[in-house]
Amino acid sequence: MYSFKDDYSEGAHPKILQALIDSNEMQEDGYGNDSHTKNAINKIKVLINNENVDIHLISGGTQTNLTAISSFLRPHEACIAANTAHISTHETGAIECTGHKIITIDTDTGKICPKQIQKVLDWHENEHAVKPKLVYISNSTEVGSIYSKKELEELSLFCKNNNLIFYLDGARLAAALSCDYCDYSIADICNLTDAFYIGGTKNGALLGEALVIKNDNLKSDFRFFIKQKGALLAKGRLLGIQFETLFTNNLYFELASHTNNMANLLREGLKSLNYNFLIDSHTNQIFPIISNQIIEKLKTNYSFHIWEQIDDEYSAIRLVTSWMTKETTINKFLSELNL
Amino acid sequence: MYSFKDDYSEGAHPKILQALIDSNEMQEDGYGNDSHTKNAINKIKVLINNENVDIHLISGGTQTNLTAISSFLRPHEACIAANTAHISTHETGAIECTGHKIITIDTDTGKICPKQIQKVLDWHENEHAVKPKLVYISNSTEVGSIYSKKELEELSLFCKNNNLIFYLDGARLAAALSCDYCDYSIADICNLTDAFYIGGTKNGALLGEALVIKNDNLKSDFRFFIKQKGALLAKGRLLGIQFETLFTNNLYFELASHTNNMANLLREGLKSLNYNFLIDSHTNQIFPIISNQIIEKLKTNYSFHIWEQIDDEYSAIRLVTSWMTKETTINKFLSELNL
Amino acid sequence: MYSFKDDYSEGAHPKILQALIDSNEMQEDGYGNDSHTKNAINKIKVLINNENVDIHLISGGTQTNLTAISSFLRPHEACIAANTAHISTHETGAIECTGHKIITIDTDTGKICPKQIQKVLDWHENEHAVKPKLVYISNSTEVGSIYSKKELEELSLFCKNNNLIFYLDGARLAAALSCDYCDYSIADICNLTDAFYIGGTKNGALLGEALVIKNDNLKSDFRFFIKQKGALLAKGRLLGIQFETLFTNNLYFELASHTNNMANLLREGLKSLNYNFLIDSHTNQIFPIISNQIIEKLKTNYSFHIWEQIDDEYSAIRLVTSWMTKETTINKFLSELNL
Amino acid sequence: MYSFKDDYSEGAHPKILQALIDSNEMQEDGYGNDSHTKNAINKIKVLINNENVDIHLISGGTQTNLTAISSFLRPHEACIAANTAHISTHETGAIECTGHKIITIDTDTGKICPKQIQKVLDWHENEHAVKPKLVYISNSTEVGSIYSKKELEELSLFCKNNNLIFYLDGARLAAALSCDYCDYSIADICNLTDAFYIGGTKNGALLGEALVIKNDNLKSDFRFFIKQKGALLAKGRLLGIQFETLFTNNLYFELASHTNNMANLLREGLKSLNYNFLIDSHTNQIFPIISNQIIEKLKTNYSFHIWEQIDDEYSAIRLVTSWMTKETTINKFLSELNL
Repeated sequence: MYSFKDDYSEGAHPKILQALIDSNEMQEDGYGNDSHTKNAINKIKVLINNENVDIHLISGGTQTNLTAISSFLRPHEACIAANTAHISTHETGAIECTGHKIITIDTDTGKICPKQIQKVLDWHENEHAVKPKLVYISNSTEVGSIYSKKELEELSLFCKNNNLIFYLDGARLAAALSCDYCDYSIADICNLTDAFYIGGTKNGALLGEALVIKNDNLKSDFRFFIKQKGALLAKGRLLGIQFETLFTNNLYFELASHTNNMANLLREGLKSLNYNFLIDSHTNQIFPIISNQIIEKLKTNYSFHIWEQIDDEYSAIRLVTSWMTKETTINKFLSELNL
Repeated sequence: MYSFKDDYSEGAHPKILQALIDSNEMQEDGYGNDSHTKNAINKIKVLINNENVDIHLISGGTQTNLTAISSFLRPHEACIAANTAHISTHETGAIECTGHKIITIDTDTGKICPKQIQKVLDWHENEHAVKPKLVYISNSTEVGSIYSKKELEELSLFCKNNNLIFYLDGARLAAALSCDYCDYSIADICNLTDAFYIGGTKNGALLGEALVIKNDNLKSDFRFFIKQKGALLAKGRLLGIQFETLFTNNLYFELASHTNNMANLLREGLKSLNYNFLIDSHTNQIFPIISNQIIEKLKTNYSFHIWEQIDDEYSAIRLVTSWMTKETTINKFLSELNL
Repeated sequence: MYSFKDDYSEGAHPKILQALIDSNEMQEDGYGNDSHTKNAINKIKVLINNENVDIHLISGGTQTNLTAISSFLRPHEACIAANTAHISTHETGAIECTGHKIITIDTDTGKICPKQIQKVLDWHENEHAVKPKLVYISNSTEVGSIYSKKELEELSLFCKNNNLIFYLDGARLAAALSCDYCDYSIADICNLTDAFYIGGTKNGALLGEALVIKNDNLKSDFRFFIKQKGALLAKGRLLGIQFETLFTNNLYFELASHTNNMANLLREGLKSLNYNFLIDSHTNQIFPIISNQIIEKLKTNYSFHIWEQIDDEYSAIRLVTSWMTKETTINKFLSELNL
Repeated sequence: MYSFKDDYSEGAHPKILQALIDSNEMQEDGYGNDSHTKNAINKIKVLINNENVDIHLISGGTQTNLTAISSFLRPHEACIAANTAHISTHETGAIECTGHKIITIDTDTGKICPKQIQKVLDWHENEHAVKPKLVYISNSTEVGSIYSKKELEELSLFCKNNNLIFYLDGARLAAALSCDYCDYSIADICNLTDAFYIGGTKNGALLGEALVIKNDNLKSDFRFFIKQKGALLAKGRLLGIQFETLFTNNLYFELASHTNNMANLLREGLKSLNYNFLIDSHTNQIFPIISNQIIEKLKTNYSFHIWEQIDDEYSAIRLVTSWMTKETTINKFLSELNL
């Protein structure tokens, strides 16, 4: 049985495990004050070519989103996000639980644009409604699509002009940046947003996301929030060592490239077998439309999520590749489909 | 430089790292639905001799406390705790941030008793004040003391009689259970409380605490809370593998015994050098009173926390041993003190 | 200048003021323990023909909604409501501020039905999303429509079958119950819901809503919540006296009948002048579509809200009648429109 | 039966009721945008001799405290207050429910001083504990004492020097300002604090407190908070009319003077009967120590709160005078005590 369910079914890249072993006996200060965390942060600063950001390593994506957003907003301020946004659909109301409304925008692509945000602003005009204050996007999105540089620039400018915080959820940022269609760097991401996070969990780490806060107004007292939300690991070294490793010798991007290459192989293979797709994704999530009969057969050897029922006969499934997916696995899967 | 600052300065026990390596390439379901987590939970159920508990593996102590308490209480209900309680002093208002008041009881020993709790109940009589509903204790306490079985039984009975939830923070439960003065087992802890957690971070794990919920009324929908608070790790296997290892061949208790033995060696050594102690602790936290002059000298080769200024000349420091502390280190420290 | 802006532009019905004067010098217990509050509650119990409900008088609608909902739900539970719902659009995120997500259903009529709710339930299947638990409706709705008895019965049954709390916001319940199209009584409202509130502010009171909790599971400790949310008035008599007066000699329904009659006069007059309406409302809120040119002229002598721009030439405005609106005012307005 | 329970047992001053009648039929804008609220605010600005403050009328004391404090603080910031503080003891955890810890200082007088606050700051040094940010005092205090001008100046200076918000709960500010021992004006209160409120409920209004925000940093978007907390009354005129009346021809201070005079009469009478007092109060709350036997007799004709049991034979009771208390009532009470 092989799982195409997600990109976090395996452990960590072996280099990460080796780094854990190598550093294990050395005493380090707790709570992210260890040498590895400092080193990881420095490496990220070099990568994004910005010395003046604050970087915090946090255990997971929901944790990062709720800690960041609840720190950035006052209680009457709200988020704007796609209706497919992870914070709206798959975080069990974590943001609302910290007191903030999420105003959603309907989208088929997983992406939102300034025109849609303007409409939200238009009908939030006074103290009888929440004050929209933060624009949340995911990149790559929850449906595998990515923003173009032009789209990000337009959102960035719009946010600046409207005094909105521009926040990017990068749980799968690696997949976006390593995708063939990507026309920007991680440094561009930093330039264009107020804050974003660099996902580790879905790109070879055991756990961990690196939150980058560029906007000075959002920096103060952030460690209080990490601690208050239960996200300040006593052995912060665990996060430090992982990001230190991921950002040594380009490992982070190599893993994502491999992941995307495997997805491309799968996508092209499906296309050549004449399958259609629910969504036009460019990264490691693929949504082919397959007959329910074939889906049942596939279940013998593969696990995956049924994404959406198309009609009585067909459904879209989600196939996700990871840094550990092998070419032989893809080929075997495609050949089974071709029988 | 050797650190006596805490019991989480080193990495993980080598057996844990080996288990991570051994399991690394195997695909597992996410979010705690992996085989290791299930196995760890079964091992714990055997240990506490209770099949009917719910067990959840969570990344850290503050995370566990805030997730559990905010799930157990309705918004108008409050905690009762010692004024030294970790939730009151060292969690950055995490509990209040979920909406709940902590009513504190002054204590010199880190422990609280039914008589003190009764007083709290007496002056919370109607809807103009919060409703005290949960009694929080730590064991071992934040100052290294432990409850006796009789004390726990009295608290347990009092809570039952007064419809209070009895919750035990076991960040250092291993140290308590492995201490020479301990007259109960982990199964007793389960019998006497409504919920408690078994600390991993401070006893050889990279991270992780195992929350045990015995009271049926507190069980429902708990995974919603873990997810909502950002505590549901995608690679839950990381926690599962660690507790699986800790509860194989008694490793968990062996590590704590070693830790306590090292503390005893240190404590006896200090006594024989005629040092007094701020608090009469029996576990791996020791609070000797030392002249400021000597403290300054010690700082050359050792790091530790200054706990409390006694007078102009003396201070109490905190020395903490860990599962990795070596006898030679203790002896060297004592000999330096003896110069 | 006459205002058709809302139904709370004037003070209180003179009988209420007289009752305040008559009772003024008498000492009463505070916090709703006064004789008038008790009397008002008894009158409401008779009216709804149910002795076993808990009734609480609260200062306003948002206050009532947030206090009730935050008491009824656990932190991971969410509301389902129309996208036009007051709690979603005009309460500044009050519900989210207490930690709960509102899942909205798109509607043109201001009303929702079981089929729509079922869809919501379908895509909230596990702990990665909030748990839908409370269905919120307004009656009359925010756009002046009312539910039929059949619609309420279907919702009630659906909620019961799906273990959902059925909550009715009755800010304008009087208008609904006194409307020509209404085929149920306030006793029916009580029978069909778990909790609902009887609006006073928008039907002749200075302030005040009467929350009726029928479901026993929702009753406990509610006064703690009223106090905690700042809603427990020291001089609770102010609320008691008003509801006592409103429910003496049928005043409450007389006021609403008058209000609806004035709305009918206005509606029929507009129809006879060939105006169309944005929404087919039956109560005291009317949404005629009028040319912008005429709107500008009307502004000289009348104030009202522009509700929605229809196209470049036309807009829908909102006209609201109140218990104090006079027939001569309506006629004068219609004649000005007819020039 | 006469009640000495509190200062809110009666209705409103007759001039307030008359003002409600006089203004009743006039249409006014809702939500505090009415002419009376504007007029009331202007009168208060004249009184405190400061044009640049923001003033908001809010229904009650707990509502004001929770709305103000939750607006002023970020989630990790905490209040410092006396252990007797209303927000800590009698608001059902309202402040904690908005997420903020209250750090209490033990006091016998109901008052706190800079030295005590400094100690709190000393043990809150980093992100493992909350960040103390707001100093809350009540004046007159919950036990009837008042701060001297010197004490307020010291607190004010200390707060400024330590970047703390200085907030004064003025539920009984009228009693403080009208007390013989008071050496400052309401303008001084404004000068010395960042924000404070002027209590109406306990000084002749039906309900209502006027929050004055002087510190510019605390002003922005405050109306969002009022609305979000359910405190924005649709008929804000009700609050406006009352404060307009209270601040016309000095009524506010006349009522408080009368209240204090009645308290003085009662206090002196008790002294001349050789009664001792639990607390040395100067305002309208008096805490005589009386034998339980006499207390039982008094209960025939009077109601009051038992404040504290002194020993087996004696208890302290609380007697509160109000703007409606009559000299004959005091004399009758004293004569009954003297039998």
